[in-house]
Amino acid sequence: MQLGIIGLGRMGGNIARRLMRGGHETVVFDRAADAVAAIAADGASGADSIEALVAKLAKPRAIWVMLPAGRPTEDTITALSGLLEPGDVIIDGGNTFYKDDIRRAKALAEKSLHYVDVGTSGGVWGLERGYCMMIGGPDDVVRRLDPIFATLAPGLGTITRTAGRQPGSDHRPENGYLYAGPAGSGHFVKMVHNGIEYGMMQAYAEGFDVLKMKNSGELPEDQRFDLNMADIAEVWRRGSVISSWLLDLTAQALASDAELSHYSGAVADSGEGRWTVEAAIEEAVPIPVLATALFARFRSREEHTYGDRMLSAMRFGFGGHVEIPQ
Amino acid sequence: MQLGIIGLGRMGGNIARRLMRGGHETVVFDRAADAVAAIAADGASGADSIEALVAKLAKPRAIWVMLPAGRPTEDTITALSGLLEPGDVIIDGGNTFYKDDIRRAKALAEKSLHYVDVGTSGGVWGLERGYCMMIGGPDDVVRRLDPIFATLAPGLGTITRTAGRQPGSDHRPENGYLYAGPAGSGHFVKMVHNGIEYGMMQAYAEGFDVLKMKNSGELPEDQRFDLNMADIAEVWRRGSVISSWLLDLTAQALASDAELSHYSGAVADSGEGRWTVEAAIEEAVPIPVLATALFARFRSREEHTYGDRMLSAMRFGFGGHVEIPQ
Amino acid sequence: MQLGIIGLGRMGGNIARRLMRGGHETVVFDRAADAVAAIAADGASGADSIEALVAKLAKPRAIWVMLPAGRPTEDTITALSGLLEPGDVIIDGGNTFYKDDIRRAKALAEKSLHYVDVGTSGGVWGLERGYCMMIGGPDDVVRRLDPIFATLAPGLGTITRTAGRQPGSDHRPENGYLYAGPAGSGHFVKMVHNGIEYGMMQAYAEGFDVLKMKNSGELPEDQRFDLNMADIAEVWRRGSVISSWLLDLTAQALASDAELSHYSGAVADSGEGRWTVEAAIEEAVPIPVLATALFARFRSREEHTYGDRMLSAMRFGFGGHVEIPQ
Amino acid sequence: MQLGIIGLGRMGGNIARRLMRGGHETVVFDRAADAVAAIAADGASGADSIEALVAKLAKPRAIWVMLPAGRPTEDTITALSGLLEPGDVIIDGGNTFYKDDIRRAKALAEKSLHYVDVGTSGGVWGLERGYCMMIGGPDDVVRRLDPIFATLAPGLGTITRTAGRQPGSDHRPENGYLYAGPAGSGHFVKMVHNGIEYGMMQAYAEGFDVLKMKNSGELPEDQRFDLNMADIAEVWRRGSVISSWLLDLTAQALASDAELSHYSGAVADSGEGRWTVEAAIEEAVPIPVLATALFARFRSREEHTYGDRMLSAMRFGFGGHVEIPQ
Repeated sequence: MQLGIIGLGRMGGNIARRLMRGGHETVVFDRAADAVAAIAADGASGADSIEALVAKLAKPRAIWVMLPAGRPTEDTITALSGLLEPGDVIIDGGNTFYKDDIRRAKALAEKSLHYVDVGTSGGVWGLERGYCMMIGGPDDVVRRLDPIFATLAPGLGTITRTAGRQPGSDHRPENGYLYAGPAGSGHFVKMVHNGIEYGMMQAYAEGFDVLKMKNSGELPEDQRFDLNMADIAEVWRRGSVISSWLLDLTAQALASDAELSHYSGAVADSGEGRWTVEAAIEEAVPIPVLATALFARFRSREEHTYGDRMLSAMRFGFGGHVEIPQ
Repeated sequence: MQLGIIGLGRMGGNIARRLMRGGHETVVFDRAADAVAAIAADGASGADSIEALVAKLAKPRAIWVMLPAGRPTEDTITALSGLLEPGDVIIDGGNTFYKDDIRRAKALAEKSLHYVDVGTSGGVWGLERGYCMMIGGPDDVVRRLDPIFATLAPGLGTITRTAGRQPGSDHRPENGYLYAGPAGSGHFVKMVHNGIEYGMMQAYAEGFDVLKMKNSGELPEDQRFDLNMADIAEVWRRGSVISSWLLDLTAQALASDAELSHYSGAVADSGEGRWTVEAAIEEAVPIPVLATALFARFRSREEHTYGDRMLSAMRFGFGGHVEIPQ
Repeated sequence: MQLGIIGLGRMGGNIARRLMRGGHETVVFDRAADAVAAIAADGASGADSIEALVAKLAKPRAIWVMLPAGRPTEDTITALSGLLEPGDVIIDGGNTFYKDDIRRAKALAEKSLHYVDVGTSGGVWGLERGYCMMIGGPDDVVRRLDPIFATLAPGLGTITRTAGRQPGSDHRPENGYLYAGPAGSGHFVKMVHNGIEYGMMQAYAEGFDVLKMKNSGELPEDQRFDLNMADIAEVWRRGSVISSWLLDLTAQALASDAELSHYSGAVADSGEGRWTVEAAIEEAVPIPVLATALFARFRSREEHTYGDRMLSAMRFGFGGHVEIPQ
Repeated sequence: MQLGIIGLGRMGGNIARRLMRGGHETVVFDRAADAVAAIAADGASGADSIEALVAKLAKPRAIWVMLPAGRPTEDTITALSGLLEPGDVIIDGGNTFYKDDIRRAKALAEKSLHYVDVGTSGGVWGLERGYCMMIGGPDDVVRRLDPIFATLAPGLGTITRTAGRQPGSDHRPENGYLYAGPAGSGHFVKMVHNGIEYGMMQAYAEGFDVLKMKNSGELPEDQRFDLNMADIAEVWRRGSVISSWLLDLTAQALASDAELSHYSGAVADSGEGRWTVEAAIEEAVPIPVLATALFARFRSREEHTYGDRMLSAMRFGFGGHVEIPQ
């Protein structure tokens, strides 16, 4: 089927390509003309404005917005809402906060426009592996778009099927896309996905820290090992309880540089990890591990904290301890 | 080659079976005669005592002890050390604390006996999937035992090879077994593996808690979703960043009972999670996520803590707040 | 000077009393007529409506609202904003979210009304000990109200003065009230105060848990002590590094019942602890201890979590471990 | 009464002085002759060797060892055990691990020597404020030494008595010293005291971090305040729920330098914080806040962790995110 796509960055461009490989027709726009040209060269119909894109699409239109969450996405959806006609669908495939989805869906519904939120996981690997999608919106509209989702998703592939899965279960999750419920639910599930991702990543990071420090010259010689980080990541990929795709990626990184020396150690975080903590607080659900994983990233971006200096000041106050920088 | 195996529980029995399927000869003993009989029926040579097992093995002997860590393993190794001859090898495949390995290896070396520690992951799935093994001990002794490890390990299988892995790297990790270094290093790596496992499991658990509570009747109706836990676990298995074997198992459990209602919620912990915290403290490595995951299990086994009641007492003290049980 | 007070609960009533003891004149209103009568019996001028209260006050009026944060406070301020005249002041002494203060101050300023936010600590003890106040609002308006704050505050009292405090420093903090800055800053400082309070309380609670469990019959007899919780709290009050007012209250609670047996262990939390986490996330400041303290309260209100059951399900999945409730 | 003191550092020297001020007789030894001379000048009888010190004491002797925990204390007690006679008492006032106390008490009892462990809080302030002491050992021996403890302790002083304290309660806790039980219990209680101290300090540190960052130029201007750290610490000392001695010390430090700029931010930790975590793990008691506070100190001493770099490597792996150092 036909799909409009706005935003041809790393994700948007590959989504267009995967759809075209699957036989779909795409009409694409990006503020960067060369991004449009590149996808057009692969078979897309390029548009040089949002208006042009809307004009090129058959009704009822479906337009996938793949832009940074916040202002860029918001402005684009506002613009579209002035151009589209009843029955058209706007799909937000970015990392939008789920409460924004709920608000937007309500506003667009007043104009008889449909809104579908798609949490999209898969990163730079999606073109080949397919995108894992978590979808919120009106049931019938999501079904209408099924050919799009079915093509973007990984499908059954070579992954074993889950033993005991109930007959009659929705087939979509097995194929790598989930209908989660009404507007916002897709991004809510994706948000929690990223929260879990933070926790898992931090679990690996802490474990490898314990391994790495065991090699350290700071330990007495008879307490030291000489562990090989690349080999450890590799062996855990095979038959261990903690094998995962994140571990596969870790093994790759360690294979080329076991010291990981071209990373500074300052780690960014994005909205979803933060929103997961806020959602848990709203629900009064304890998530100490996910929150601590987020805080570890905040901490990684500071040299020393004011609070750390205050600890030293207190220690000096009560015990005369003089802290010596290491 | 020939291997003696002491301890024919869930792990030991399947290790014997996988070795025999691979063409090795096993001599087996267990305090439970029927366990010996069962493996003997599969082709092993059964022994009715440790002495008998030792007598049946050709020199230099290799004996795999697969018993609970602590007293059972310790007593067995002490007994073996009185029966074996220079050049023989004792392999501890259990969950031994790595400092016990170091101590034992030193004591046994005085009798010219070799000691090899093997951290073994794979649980009830090892017979089919193979066992991921992390091995410590003398390099040449571990090489002598290579046919055993090669058979027990998963091998390359269908798992993609790691891009960028250095040519000339040890081939063993790719095949699912690691030579980690001298005595204790195998169990050290396995210990950290389990520490990471705790952290990953807790990350999933917290995330699903946030999802599940979003369905809760305790939330105002317009803030509720109706999320399907089994479908969410299923979709994340395919193309998402957090796919893993633990998630595969979670999806299986949720497929048959999305409420997980036959579990009480009291979660056990074993030595490795605790030892990981202690090892990190010895190294002064911060592992807040792994420690917090351990503490969450402790907490799961208590109804309410004394400390919780103390919080209420303080709240009453300063604010006159009367805590009402929920 | 003269002050109107709306809300005569535990806090509001005692604020009125402390002011009257200090020679101030109060005009009071509460929805509960008997609360008004009780304070009137102590010398206040009672009003039977907000309108009546406003009418009784001399211009420029100052009215202290001491109601639960959220709807009750919001509605009252909205009502007042329709009754007051330019130059009048509304003081919010409750536990309002600081962003609500900023919003309200801006809206009221359009009507030339002043808004002062006062974070008030002291609970049921304030009448005798005085109230520790953190104040936000226009500098000159806060100065105009100084007689009120000076009376409510504890004053220098018997607490030793801080060595090294700069000459020329604002005298107010030493007297127990702080001018923090523009609207919202008072409640912001009070919010963080409560966040710290959660962390400190949890630190004591965890420590006493370790002490209490050391008496437990679950430990082997030779690892047990028979520690006296009341005596421990008492001794730490005197000369130890961790003496504090919270510890004084703990010692009182333990003196009358060392088992704290009339508390269920379910601990409530209020807005400030949650907002502190959100503020830290907005600032990208790591606060693992404060957040974990909040989560411990969430956890205290649940018997078992869904996530805990999921951990057991995974353990069964990979290891065949059957969790037995304790 | 008469007391021998070995170790005249910051703590030991002031203990001798406080005892002499209280009318006791001290015989003192330190490896540093000038330390002995300094205390002798204040009235002590100096000894130039352990043997000389033992010879100068009347039987039954009581000797207070005030040395760093570990080797220095251990060696001294071993030496004393060869010189003392049945009925003599060794007091360990240092920061010894409580299991070492239990072991030592047992070994010394075989020679009919008594062992008393005293956890001593008070730091550099003890000479004036008195020392808060937590004491383990044989009941009758501790009673025999009561004049010593009574003099060293703060006594009732100006601290209000705890309402509701049971009549007939041991008077010692009120006077600042606790008889905790048999050998090891004194240091156990002191250990947990320090664990709590870590948690409280971290709670303040995190809270002040949130306050300080609210002034930061990194925040949008309309979200910034200009909070005065010294004034905030000061006001909280008076009437707030979180007033404490640690806060008094914090206020002092902030009064002289609100930036705390002469501290590097690298914070040391000592044995007790670590042992508290290990004790909690042995008891299966969850102490996420105390452990996290310890880990924050570990983290403060590292610029960046290997684990942090691994997080960036994973992010690059799945999303092509390039981490730019901040």
